Amino acid sequence: MTGYEKTVARSETGDALLLTPGPLTTSKSVKAAMVHDWGSRDAGFLTINREVLERLPTIVNGGTDYVTVPIQGSGTFAVEAMLTGFVPPDGCCLLVVNGAYGQRARRILEIAKRRSVVCETAEDTPPNLAQIEQVLKTDPSITHVFVVHCETTSGILNPVHEIGVLAAEYGKGYLIDSMSAFGALPLDAPAAHADAIAASSNKCIEGVPGLGFVICRRQALTATQGNATTLTLDVHDQWTVLEKTGQYRFTPPIHVIVAFHQALTEFFAEGGQPGRGARYTDNCRVLVEGMRAMGFETLLPDRLQAPIIVTFRMPSDRRFVFQTFYDKLKDRGFVIYPGKLTVADSFRIGCIGRLDRGHMQLALAAIREVLAELGVTSVAPSKAA
Amino acid sequence: MTGYEKTVARSETGDALLLTPGPLTTSKSVKAAMVHDWGSRDAGFLTINREVLERLPTIVNGGTDYVTVPIQGSGTFAVEAMLTGFVPPDGCCLLVVNGAYGQRARRILEIAKRRSVVCETAEDTPPNLAQIEQVLKTDPSITHVFVVHCETTSGILNPVHEIGVLAAEYGKGYLIDSMSAFGALPLDAPAAHADAIAASSNKCIEGVPGLGFVICRRQALTATQGNATTLTLDVHDQWTVLEKTGQYRFTPPIHVIVAFHQALTEFFAEGGQPGRGARYTDNCRVLVEGMRAMGFETLLPDRLQAPIIVTFRMPSDRRFVFQTFYDKLKDRGFVIYPGKLTVADSFRIGCIGRLDRGHMQLALAAIREVLAELGVTSVAPSKAA
Repeated sequence: MTGYEKTVARSETGDALLLTPGPLTTSKSVKAAMVHDWGSRDAGFLTINREVLERLPTIVNGGTDYVTVPIQGSGTFAVEAMLTGFVPPDGCCLLVVNGAYGQRARRILEIAKRRSVVCETAEDTPPNLAQIEQVLKTDPSITHVFVVHCETTSGILNPVHEIGVLAAEYGKGYLIDSMSAFGALPLDAPAAHADAIAASSNKCIEGVPGLGFVICRRQALTATQGNATTLTLDVHDQWTVLEKTGQYRFTPPIHVIVAFHQALTEFFAEGGQPGRGARYTDNCRVLVEGMRAMGFETLLPDRLQAPIIVTFRMPSDRRFVFQTFYDKLKDRGFVIYPGKLTVADSFRIGCIGRLDRGHMQLALAAIREVLAELGVTSVAPSKAA
Repeated sequence: MTGYEKTVARSETGDALLLTPGPLTTSKSVKAAMVHDWGSRDAGFLTINREVLERLPTIVNGGTDYVTVPIQGSGTFAVEAMLTGFVPPDGCCLLVVNGAYGQRARRILEIAKRRSVVCETAEDTPPNLAQIEQVLKTDPSITHVFVVHCETTSGILNPVHEIGVLAAEYGKGYLIDSMSAFGALPLDAPAAHADAIAASSNKCIEGVPGLGFVICRRQALTATQGNATTLTLDVHDQWTVLEKTGQYRFTPPIHVIVAFHQALTEFFAEGGQPGRGARYTDNCRVLVEGMRAMGFETLLPDRLQAPIIVTFRMPSDRRFVFQTFYDKLKDRGFVIYPGKLTVADSFRIGCIGRLDRGHMQLALAAIREVLAELGVTSVAPSKAA
């Protein structure tokens, strides 16, 4: 390997590959579905939309007990709609936190003037189930429990089913932010006793960004009437009007929804969650093995690592300048992601999107070339990290 | 004209023409811009986004005093963000109402627990400026005034500049929902003393739906800190983070924004607001003259009619079944819009989107054919209407 070699990759549409937690590389057919216009109240679009809403709960074994409430906007719009809809004004939510997305939920509830209690562990540490149970046992004011399925802050996989069983045991509602995991990691909504699961169009279903959604247990959703703190993020009102008319209260992101419909078709053609999850798991394995072979260290041990995004500790060699590393990879057609950790200096590489092991191998080759160009011979992190 | 003739039209991408208040027919080049992927934090997309945000205030003579705060979601998300951001918890907003969008603003403030006072006129009647001034004079608790620029309920053009001058005279903040008018009708933000103007990507700029925005007077926006009732719709926080980092707090609808960028390029190539407005005015004139020649009656006299969407009174002939009329037009490639009036039975036809007088003439030909097919010889509305 010399500095003169240059591995270059491009997607089907000639774009850099997005090795990020999303928005991510999508198929050409998903994007091509958007090169049309539809009326927002016309039958053709409404049929496409209904199919999207009906297919989503099947991914989490929702059966007929669960319905999809779409929310225009990003995934955080759906999380805010879920939290402000399900946690009533006099409620209190136990937040299981080990990263930035758990903290974001705390901020949402604070702004909405809803009480919360936090069970927090470090960003590289799974939730403490014993502590959670202790809090549920001793604080009867708690009405709901919230957790992030895969915290992309670190890439950690949280035990959503175990926490749901605990929440149910103590009679609490259960809300999951499954944003970056939905469709790739197994999630059984009834078995997890989930009242609501939030996710978005631009993660593991491989659509484009612009639509969040909340998959809701019908009975729990019915009970949210009057809780909302806004008009636009009111999950109950959004659902009621869609059920009655088949139409959105406010203009839907039509092109995003049509692309999402195509993405779902391709998702099911790949075998649904097991198929999608298998490809991402393979991507993750190739990435982690290749990076470790170069000497990089992952933040997380393999048993805690979700096959979504991997956090690597920053090399201590001063010749490793992250922005240069990023730019040279970008120039070769690979977009990686900066770190978000508070516990250690790091960067992240995603495994999701329209990518396979071949793309990951190309990325590894490019990383080796860039390290050689930078003159970095050791990528060991500093001992302090 | 016989029932055997069939005028059929399709857009450049083979779709029905959307004679609606939006989402509307867009150019092929606007939609084709979406057939790529971008990272949400990568320089290429951030440059496109910055250009979008910088170009928008120039359309309303914003100079350097005004900035754009984008809001993921539909136009109503931007209106809710504007109202809940600008009207403080102890504020009170005078709502100038003559249609459904004014009523929607009332509902938004009610949910946000912000006080409001309403000056309402009928849907076919302009605001009563004397009454507005009387209320401003006698109620010192009012902090803001809100009006809808073009109420698409009827298609009426409201006197936004005159109301702004009144608001300024009494020292009130001034908020405009310019959704369906923005870019087509003249609006001078400083001359109107506007603090904030809400609109969206999928109206007269001819982009696809998925992004709302609020053009804010910088000084007034600064004063909104801490007012927001949600995290996602917080205009101050959205602005502050964008100013500091150039990035969105939460995933932007990238493809929608890139399409909007292309739409703005085409908008300015057409001569900006004067050029766009002239085409729509021509569309509206051709439509109204042609419909009147068939005997249809417009709800509004020409002096109140904005060249955005026209409300026609429903013919009283029982052979005129609106759903059949709609379906037969749709079959020919023309999507019209149902009425929303409470004052009269009606339907609507839009003049906006990538359409010109040729398209309007085709629509008129199709309408004549459908009337002949239905055996409708008089389209006069009932006398009661």
